[in-house]
Amino acid sequence: MAKTATYLDYNAAAPLLDEARAAIIDALDVNANPSSVHASGRAAKAIIAKARRQVADLVGAKPDHVIFTSGATEAAQMLLTPHYSMGRSPLKVGHLYVCATDHPCTLAGGQFSKDAVSLISVQASGIIDFDALEESLRAHDKSSGLALVVCHAANNETGVIQPFAKIGDIVKAAGGIFVLDAVQAVGRLDLTIADTGADYLILSSHKIGGPKGAGAIVAVSDLVMPMPLIKGGGQERGHRGGTEAVVNIAGFGAAAESAKFSSERFNALTDVQNHLERGLRKALPEIIIHGQIDGAEAPRLPNTTFFTVPNAKAETLQINFDLAGYAVSAGSACSSGKVGRSHVLTAMGVEGDEGAIRVSFGHKTTKAEIDAFLIAFEQILARMKR
Amino acid sequence: MAKTATYLDYNAAAPLLDEARAAIIDALDVNANPSSVHASGRAAKAIIAKARRQVADLVGAKPDHVIFTSGATEAAQMLLTPHYSMGRSPLKVGHLYVCATDHPCTLAGGQFSKDAVSLISVQASGIIDFDALEESLRAHDKSSGLALVVCHAANNETGVIQPFAKIGDIVKAAGGIFVLDAVQAVGRLDLTIADTGADYLILSSHKIGGPKGAGAIVAVSDLVMPMPLIKGGGQERGHRGGTEAVVNIAGFGAAAESAKFSSERFNALTDVQNHLERGLRKALPEIIIHGQIDGAEAPRLPNTTFFTVPNAKAETLQINFDLAGYAVSAGSACSSGKVGRSHVLTAMGVEGDEGAIRVSFGHKTTKAEIDAFLIAFEQILARMKR
Repeated sequence: MAKTATYLDYNAAAPLLDEARAAIIDALDVNANPSSVHASGRAAKAIIAKARRQVADLVGAKPDHVIFTSGATEAAQMLLTPHYSMGRSPLKVGHLYVCATDHPCTLAGGQFSKDAVSLISVQASGIIDFDALEESLRAHDKSSGLALVVCHAANNETGVIQPFAKIGDIVKAAGGIFVLDAVQAVGRLDLTIADTGADYLILSSHKIGGPKGAGAIVAVSDLVMPMPLIKGGGQERGHRGGTEAVVNIAGFGAAAESAKFSSERFNALTDVQNHLERGLRKALPEIIIHGQIDGAEAPRLPNTTFFTVPNAKAETLQINFDLAGYAVSAGSACSSGKVGRSHVLTAMGVEGDEGAIRVSFGHKTTKAEIDAFLIAFEQILARMKR
Repeated sequence: MAKTATYLDYNAAAPLLDEARAAIIDALDVNANPSSVHASGRAAKAIIAKARRQVADLVGAKPDHVIFTSGATEAAQMLLTPHYSMGRSPLKVGHLYVCATDHPCTLAGGQFSKDAVSLISVQASGIIDFDALEESLRAHDKSSGLALVVCHAANNETGVIQPFAKIGDIVKAAGGIFVLDAVQAVGRLDLTIADTGADYLILSSHKIGGPKGAGAIVAVSDLVMPMPLIKGGGQERGHRGGTEAVVNIAGFGAAAESAKFSSERFNALTDVQNHLERGLRKALPEIIIHGQIDGAEAPRLPNTTFFTVPNAKAETLQINFDLAGYAVSAGSACSSGKVGRSHVLTAMGVEGDEGAIRVSFGHKTTKAEIDAFLIAFEQILARMKR
């Protein structure tokens, strides 16, 4: 076993919170299937009900409007569908509009055919191009069905925060459905579903310190819902079949409770971020921190810094950081080790093919770790110059 | 907390095996996303690779032919689709044939429209009606695409074992695809994918002593594969997107290794079953044990006994067992507590509306527990007579 690395890749997966760990271990002893009506089954069901309240509370929603899934990708696949229903009546969605810097799991277009998916461009700052969005929705062919817009609340690579309430207003004005991928934003921002402008949020457990293998759709109401992606035994009030992942859901719930937004935590993360970025700029004045290009500074998550070292391949830097004991990423971690050009940087119009290094941190990160990281950075730079 | 019940509902969910528990706890400390290329990510990936070998070995398959899912229901939803591909060429499936006593997750028909799904009837023993299957496949309209047949290897309610190799021969002769739901059979029977006649197996973690929230598709080859149900970051070699549920998969793998078929365990379970069934018949000679009707005795799993007490509602019996501290089920546990008439008994032509009690047991069950259960059974019968 290699020595434990300093873990600065929270946006790929956050370390398990102690509260989530405890909830998981408690849940291991619950034998039964939550659908069983006996006492053991009811105990399993109670765990899920508690987690549902915790996840609902994280975003100010009603527990009944939380649907657990195996993760955010499944949630996206379920929500991005031409087939919705309003009560028992089918409701057709004709076209999907995806923000160009979205996560691969929504960029993949869900259940839409390729010709029913359009990308909405972003500005150099990474913020969605509002004119492009309005223009697309104006041109939307209502005879094909409703318009469905999906956008991330905060970008997983750059940390850039979208003005999602404004996006929600635009979508509402066009009579569309708005899905907000809140995976990276929740807990890090003060985010209440009613204020987001979204009809549905997508959440992920392992980005907030819960286990991998749980996620949720949170709906602002259950009047209009996507058709089930996974049918079966009628779990999740008919919205998602399959025996519930009790242990993961227990951990997700506990993580949701612990990860709830607090301004203290926000300020603490911001301090670490400022410390990191000051250090990076000091070590290399020409460093480019994305989401801040040409004075067009975009609001960013307090835990994410995505930077390019001019003339140094991010891939090479990443390997060097790894060898030095620092887990950071070159772009996002969304497929089996493949490293390609970041579609986020491409959409932002970033030139050059160096790529960028993402440092993302959270509850366990200390300034001392950042200091050590900065020293390693300077050493790597010095070595690369030679 | 109520006193721990004697747990006799393994077919709904088996208690966690110690080996699975240990693997889960080990995996809790792996922070990273398995797709991350740094050392922490590679550690997460190694856990999945190990589990993949363990699950493959359980059924004598190649690790590369195992695709992890969130459970058997997702696996069924993915496999039961009109859209397959052979390499890069699409391959159309025209019609789905489902055994009438299948689990609700395959009975739901997956991604097929209702008119593209036909039920294949069973005999009074619960064994599939071979003539009906052959007749349906003869009448299959090949111009619509291939025929897809799904059947369970062993029934979750009755434990009746299907002659799956024979079903496989029939499907092959008709040029169809055969999906075998091996959820209840694996580990309990000596089952090697090549001998089953199936093109794909469906497996579930929590039926073999792993955690809830993991399952797998195991393919006999990867020449022909269903189109992905969940797209996204390209995980599972492109077959299933979404960050892997590392902890569940670790537990599933360890459970697969421990649960591998052994004739000693099979014989031990058979002993317990014989002990139970002798006791039930002694307590109530007119008891009906399903899958054994009118001398048409069907081979059954060694851990499952499904019985009807004439003139006593199974629901009432189940509540009484629950109050006495025995977790058994009245039918299967596949939706939020709803109790309806068992479609399995209906398909087998069982008359009467008493329903039936399923006792299903496994690695932790002792003869002493069965003795205590039998005493409780006699007490409940005596109380109900009054």
